[in-house]
Amino acid sequence: MPDDNINSWEGRADARSFYGFTDLPTIHERGAVIVTHGEGPYIIDVHGNRYLDANSGLWNMVAGFDHPGLTEAAKAQYDRFPGYHAFFGRMSDQTVMLSEKLVEVSPFAEGKVFYTNSGSEANDTMVKMLWFLWAAEGQPQRRKILTRKNAYHGVTAVSASMTGKPYNSVFGLPLDGFLHLTCPHYWREGRDGETEAEFTARLGRELEEVIAREGAETIAGFFAEPVMGAGGVIPPSEGYFQTIAPILKKHGIPLISDEVITGFGRTGETWGCETYDFMPDAIISSKNLTAGFFPMGAVILGPELSDRLQAASEAIEEFPHGFTASGHPVGCAIALKAIDVIMNEGLAENVRALTPKFEAELARLAEHPHIGEWRGKGLMGALEAVADKPTKTPFDGSLSVSERIANACTDQGLICRPLGQSIVLCPPFIMTEAQMDEMFGKLEAALDKVFAEVT
Amino acid sequence: MPDDNINSWEGRADARSFYGFTDLPTIHERGAVIVTHGEGPYIIDVHGNRYLDANSGLWNMVAGFDHPGLTEAAKAQYDRFPGYHAFFGRMSDQTVMLSEKLVEVSPFAEGKVFYTNSGSEANDTMVKMLWFLWAAEGQPQRRKILTRKNAYHGVTAVSASMTGKPYNSVFGLPLDGFLHLTCPHYWREGRDGETEAEFTARLGRELEEVIAREGAETIAGFFAEPVMGAGGVIPPSEGYFQTIAPILKKHGIPLISDEVITGFGRTGETWGCETYDFMPDAIISSKNLTAGFFPMGAVILGPELSDRLQAASEAIEEFPHGFTASGHPVGCAIALKAIDVIMNEGLAENVRALTPKFEAELARLAEHPHIGEWRGKGLMGALEAVADKPTKTPFDGSLSVSERIANACTDQGLICRPLGQSIVLCPPFIMTEAQMDEMFGKLEAALDKVFAEVT
Repeated sequence: MPDDNINSWEGRADARSFYGFTDLPTIHERGAVIVTHGEGPYIIDVHGNRYLDANSGLWNMVAGFDHPGLTEAAKAQYDRFPGYHAFFGRMSDQTVMLSEKLVEVSPFAEGKVFYTNSGSEANDTMVKMLWFLWAAEGQPQRRKILTRKNAYHGVTAVSASMTGKPYNSVFGLPLDGFLHLTCPHYWREGRDGETEAEFTARLGRELEEVIAREGAETIAGFFAEPVMGAGGVIPPSEGYFQTIAPILKKHGIPLISDEVITGFGRTGETWGCETYDFMPDAIISSKNLTAGFFPMGAVILGPELSDRLQAASEAIEEFPHGFTASGHPVGCAIALKAIDVIMNEGLAENVRALTPKFEAELARLAEHPHIGEWRGKGLMGALEAVADKPTKTPFDGSLSVSERIANACTDQGLICRPLGQSIVLCPPFIMTEAQMDEMFGKLEAALDKVFAEVT
Repeated sequence: MPDDNINSWEGRADARSFYGFTDLPTIHERGAVIVTHGEGPYIIDVHGNRYLDANSGLWNMVAGFDHPGLTEAAKAQYDRFPGYHAFFGRMSDQTVMLSEKLVEVSPFAEGKVFYTNSGSEANDTMVKMLWFLWAAEGQPQRRKILTRKNAYHGVTAVSASMTGKPYNSVFGLPLDGFLHLTCPHYWREGRDGETEAEFTARLGRELEEVIAREGAETIAGFFAEPVMGAGGVIPPSEGYFQTIAPILKKHGIPLISDEVITGFGRTGETWGCETYDFMPDAIISSKNLTAGFFPMGAVILGPELSDRLQAASEAIEEFPHGFTASGHPVGCAIALKAIDVIMNEGLAENVRALTPKFEAELARLAEHPHIGEWRGKGLMGALEAVADKPTKTPFDGSLSVSERIANACTDQGLICRPLGQSIVLCPPFIMTEAQMDEMFGKLEAALDKVFAEVT
């Protein structure tokens, strides 16, 4: 740690904060970074160091760290009504308006909205909704949840069980009944000589086989991110959703689109399911929903699930579920503004305008002999490091290649995210071309430095 | 519904909101209540109707619905830094300061803090922490969680499994391994001729028996609210925590105090564990933590769990858990102000000053022939309706007595909460004596009206 004074900000953080998702050796070596404020896509720490955050915070602060319109919307609602719940048939006017807006901008002609405080809670809620629904309709054994390896759906015990990452084994997760199918990552999972179309067809057959083996009558639902985010930015293989959606439909298995990252413009359309042209039964939203200005998640139910869940609730007179801050008026006011800012103030448009340059720069860096693949959609992308490019052999894990690249970026004032052996970029929607040049310039320097060290 | 125009606020809410914890027959009959703003402890709906909220929102808005100091703290932080995460060893300065403050005001000499967005997420996180800890220490089979019947710990699938309420059966919950012991409610659970001390001793023997039957080596932890909240405001029987804490300690089972409702002054002390004089291994906080102005939960780890979890994390270099908005700078700034407002601006003092009057009024109403018991601690109380007082026989469930009382209160501009056959009061800490007179006056009129109808 650069400053070992226990009264330093870094020492104070260490003393009282239990760090999550933090590489502890890095903390011991470099110290925490304590952030005081932001300017556009930059954050500034207690020492005045300035970082271009190519992460948008955690994919979410797409309007930057000081958007005046969002700040004003938050402040105006704090003056007007700073908090309430949505239990007992009481809710704020902002909550009513946001539900209308969410259905309006959704792919659904009709639907209903249920609020949570996070994407984790929204996925956990959706699982409870499915368990409730099937039991109410006489199929209480229909409880298994299908997701994919490398999927990320959250960190509550149930949403972590849906997440297909090996680290969850330290908690003794997944719980029983959470099944993870093959990750639709053609470059890594495709077999020798297998075309992308053949790979996709194989994943369709796998789904059919799993349903046959487990029994459709035991499966509550299938959850998928249109582009996997924390799995390392993995777009689906060609035709993936067109292959699996009809199989799920045939077996009466609801398809839930987890749009926590992709929702509200990240892939170039409002929803990832629009980008990949499939119609889910419900959408999970969070992150961009409030542009990171407030913790909020939402389950947006399409017409069929909405009607079936309403009928199941009427039968017992109540849906016995809800969070204290579900539909918080400040969160709803911020979300109404964030949706407007993203869709109508040029942010979504900027994503589409910047995407060709973003892709071209990723493709250029992927020519490096130690970058195995670039991949992405819209303004989310990844570069995957490899020790040997022709055989796609990863670096030895002990080299911590992606962490070293990320740290070399940090040293130059650029924040990007190591995920497995990939470096992930998910810049804010307000980024300029000049800032994109800064981002790729610093990343390239970091790649050159680290690959020179490890090879 | 009073106004069946689909363009009314009530019709618009019905069309697009999937209601949680809402009695649907009441909605169909009376319509939703759409709230625009508040004044002190009152909320005002779209029609200008004014309600004294004896619920403090959901136990949480203890500084009222327009506290200027909290509003200013929120607005100042939105101007300064409107959002960031706490992953990767980066966090806001506000987050560092709140962690220090939480340990400082906790009963612990040392400790560490982990943030979530809700009490549900905090309990779910604590369960994951225990599972992680025991597995890291070589006891992966130590996974069972002990709570009590009528306990309320949240609504994620795991925190709902901890909740000891029958309604969770509609989700097929609890999950395996969540065990519910007897509710420490002497009036309802005590046997004929059993003294309160004998009742408490019996619950101690039950705990010993459950540990012997299941095996201490299979039990990860024991969670308890100092006073059960959503179970119907149930203080523990005399000596309860003094009886169970040593048993848990003997078997190495961590005792977690769920202070989502009791934390920050509700029972007259900062923590319920202070009121009941026991030392937990960790505290779960939410609600009053931000006075309802922001969704936030916190796990406050005492020194032993903090050290053990830190060691377990160091061994694998990371604790792989965290929510996007964990430690959100705006939430932390609000919490710092809320703690100050409650502890140093007269709110906690007002709770203690008002408690004798609150208890005297509850006791007076409990003289009614159809009130079986009053109970409470500090500014949380309940009156339990009974059809027959000597035998404690409840009213027939189909009469919906408590819902009718609550609706009769609403008609007079008072919001209180029906829970089972009880009416629960948890007024904000800013309440005046005159407002308390208004609350009890309206409640008494409602009791008279409804008991006259049903008897």
